[in-house]
Amino acid sequence: MDFTNLISDRMMEVKASAVREIFKVASQPGVITFAGGMPAPESFPAEEIREAAMDILTNQPTAALQYSVSEGYPRLREQLKERLTKKFNIKMDQNELIVVSGSQQGADLATKALVNEGDGVVCEEPSFIGCLNTFRTYKAKLFGVKMNEDGMDMQQLEKTLKENKNIKMIYTIPTFQNPSGVTTSLAVRKRMLELAQKYNVVILEDNPYGELRFSGEDVPTIKSMDTTGNVIYIGSFSKVFSPGLRLAYLVFDKGIMEKIVVGKQATDVHTNIFAQMIASYYLDHYDMDARIESSRLLYKHRCEWMLSCMEKYFPKGVTWTHPDGGIFIWATLPDGIDTQKLLAESVEKKVAYVPGVAFMTDINQVTSSLRLNYSTMPDDKIEEGIKILGALLASKMN
Amino acid sequence: MDFTNLISDRMMEVKASAVREIFKVASQPGVITFAGGMPAPESFPAEEIREAAMDILTNQPTAALQYSVSEGYPRLREQLKERLTKKFNIKMDQNELIVVSGSQQGADLATKALVNEGDGVVCEEPSFIGCLNTFRTYKAKLFGVKMNEDGMDMQQLEKTLKENKNIKMIYTIPTFQNPSGVTTSLAVRKRMLELAQKYNVVILEDNPYGELRFSGEDVPTIKSMDTTGNVIYIGSFSKVFSPGLRLAYLVFDKGIMEKIVVGKQATDVHTNIFAQMIASYYLDHYDMDARIESSRLLYKHRCEWMLSCMEKYFPKGVTWTHPDGGIFIWATLPDGIDTQKLLAESVEKKVAYVPGVAFMTDINQVTSSLRLNYSTMPDDKIEEGIKILGALLASKMN
Repeated sequence: MDFTNLISDRMMEVKASAVREIFKVASQPGVITFAGGMPAPESFPAEEIREAAMDILTNQPTAALQYSVSEGYPRLREQLKERLTKKFNIKMDQNELIVVSGSQQGADLATKALVNEGDGVVCEEPSFIGCLNTFRTYKAKLFGVKMNEDGMDMQQLEKTLKENKNIKMIYTIPTFQNPSGVTTSLAVRKRMLELAQKYNVVILEDNPYGELRFSGEDVPTIKSMDTTGNVIYIGSFSKVFSPGLRLAYLVFDKGIMEKIVVGKQATDVHTNIFAQMIASYYLDHYDMDARIESSRLLYKHRCEWMLSCMEKYFPKGVTWTHPDGGIFIWATLPDGIDTQKLLAESVEKKVAYVPGVAFMTDINQVTSSLRLNYSTMPDDKIEEGIKILGALLASKMN
Repeated sequence: MDFTNLISDRMMEVKASAVREIFKVASQPGVITFAGGMPAPESFPAEEIREAAMDILTNQPTAALQYSVSEGYPRLREQLKERLTKKFNIKMDQNELIVVSGSQQGADLATKALVNEGDGVVCEEPSFIGCLNTFRTYKAKLFGVKMNEDGMDMQQLEKTLKENKNIKMIYTIPTFQNPSGVTTSLAVRKRMLELAQKYNVVILEDNPYGELRFSGEDVPTIKSMDTTGNVIYIGSFSKVFSPGLRLAYLVFDKGIMEKIVVGKQATDVHTNIFAQMIASYYLDHYDMDARIESSRLLYKHRCEWMLSCMEKYFPKGVTWTHPDGGIFIWATLPDGIDTQKLLAESVEKKVAYVPGVAFMTDINQVTSSLRLNYSTMPDDKIEEGIKILGALLASKMN
């Protein structure tokens, strides 16, 4: 069958990502990959999850295996509300939180509820490729706003909001951003919220790495300062518990509760209830904060180690971010070096990274930046890979 | 915040379903509910799932808890291909099957890949409310085609396909349909496939109940007769294993593989990998067919029992289907009795069902039909509920 005239317009515009192809290469034996975005397996509480699974399937098998409600496991919703209020000062009403199947689904449901085809979504430039693709599948018009050292450029944001009709959302990862590692300052967060209120748009605040700070001081989430309901907040279990279980949560104003829940129903009915009960059991019986603290120490070490290797092996003229948390470093080469083209050579030398272009709203531009991930590699591989990459970069910059 | 001008057009049209409100009432203590669509908890292999979970979390914890690929767990995909080929004569190439988070997501991804806003989707009238809502969230134009005793009316289908441009899909549940319980005949299946080929549209064949036959002879799936790639097939673990784990699979022509996979990535990255490994372990270590056989016997008993109670307690003038499998009976009262209105009275008498209107493409029409589910109730409750309902119906038909 010829599907040429059958494929929807929205999907004609979205291609299998370059990153995906990189992952295929990167997963070949012998390749040192800084291309991933996975948490360290050492951070998974595997034994505790096994105990939770055992207890649940012994004592509540029917609840764990039967259909459940779209909003999520009631006990888990309570625990999340309590945790968000206590730890992040995020307050909410009874029905302003639902459990979703990973952060990506949170972004999907928010977009489904708000964004018509052709409506605008403002994104940090660079931004997380997964959500850029989500917006593209709704035929949203993407407006990239450049990232400064303290977050999204607020002048460019206001100009964009002022000059364009039908912008519905500002998508931001304010803490340890993917891919840049940048943390948005308190002043910029406040200003972004003011602008969202002024121009009546929603801020989609994606915060998967927020609890993984290993230096500096916590900055309040934008949601914690939101008194008007403009912020939709996505929190996730993926980087602090397990990504394979696909558990995240969405916090929003009750004014869009119905649309979010109906969207969830029409998309996958509800999130795997067994997984929700495992997370709930864990929160009730173990110390989540102690677990996160040990992940922080691990990532602190790996980040500092990778930065020291970059210091040692990268040629002059390359600059990079110094994250206070999260799992990514963003490096920038002199203008004119296309990191997309360079990738083939790098992979030949058995080192993989993600070229900056993957994170741009316009995937046809040339970028001289690249994203490096340090969360899963042992020290010797980090050093070996950075050394190889440094030599390759040096050879291009002579 | 006032969301009035922010909600997307697609979601303005979709409301929280009436069924959902019914479920809230039906879950109150003391209510006998025939409104559900849940499999019998006795059919869940809870002990085997516990054993599988223990084994996986002991021996492969990282694989079960880390990110995985969007297409699904490779071993499970192989097992499903083998099972579909052997049991259903459905043949496919390497990449023509992916694992999804429940059948609903299968319908969502197929719609995302094919249906533009305003494009047509032909549906059986009545049809499964969940997928009708999925199509609505894409602003599809729904064309209802009436159900006869042998399936969708083929004359009306051809007329619809001939007279309307931009119809992309025909949505069918050919075996033990939800809500009618009707099984589409072989002749109608063949004709539907011919028409799909002639008019270049896709058949979305949803088959969650296909293995739950308890009388009569199996009818080949439409997908098994598909030599042109026109059929997208959805199979599910929900009714034969566990719905709470949210596992289903989509089989399709490789011509839309890329779009389905990119859609999956942009929607929820991948399906819970721990759950996929549990299903895979089960298929490798236990006898799925023996498990299904015992569910068949259970449903055969409950269906026959409910039918005999209806025979005994329902007034003359009410007619109903006699399913050969699945979990639903569809009853029709004399014209003019609005089963939606009647529901409030029924619930007051502590019996819940789903009014026919919930399954219609036009939810503003009046229907005199209702859906009864027999899969989860013990015999005495079935008799008690049908007796109460029969008396109520009789009081309206005097």
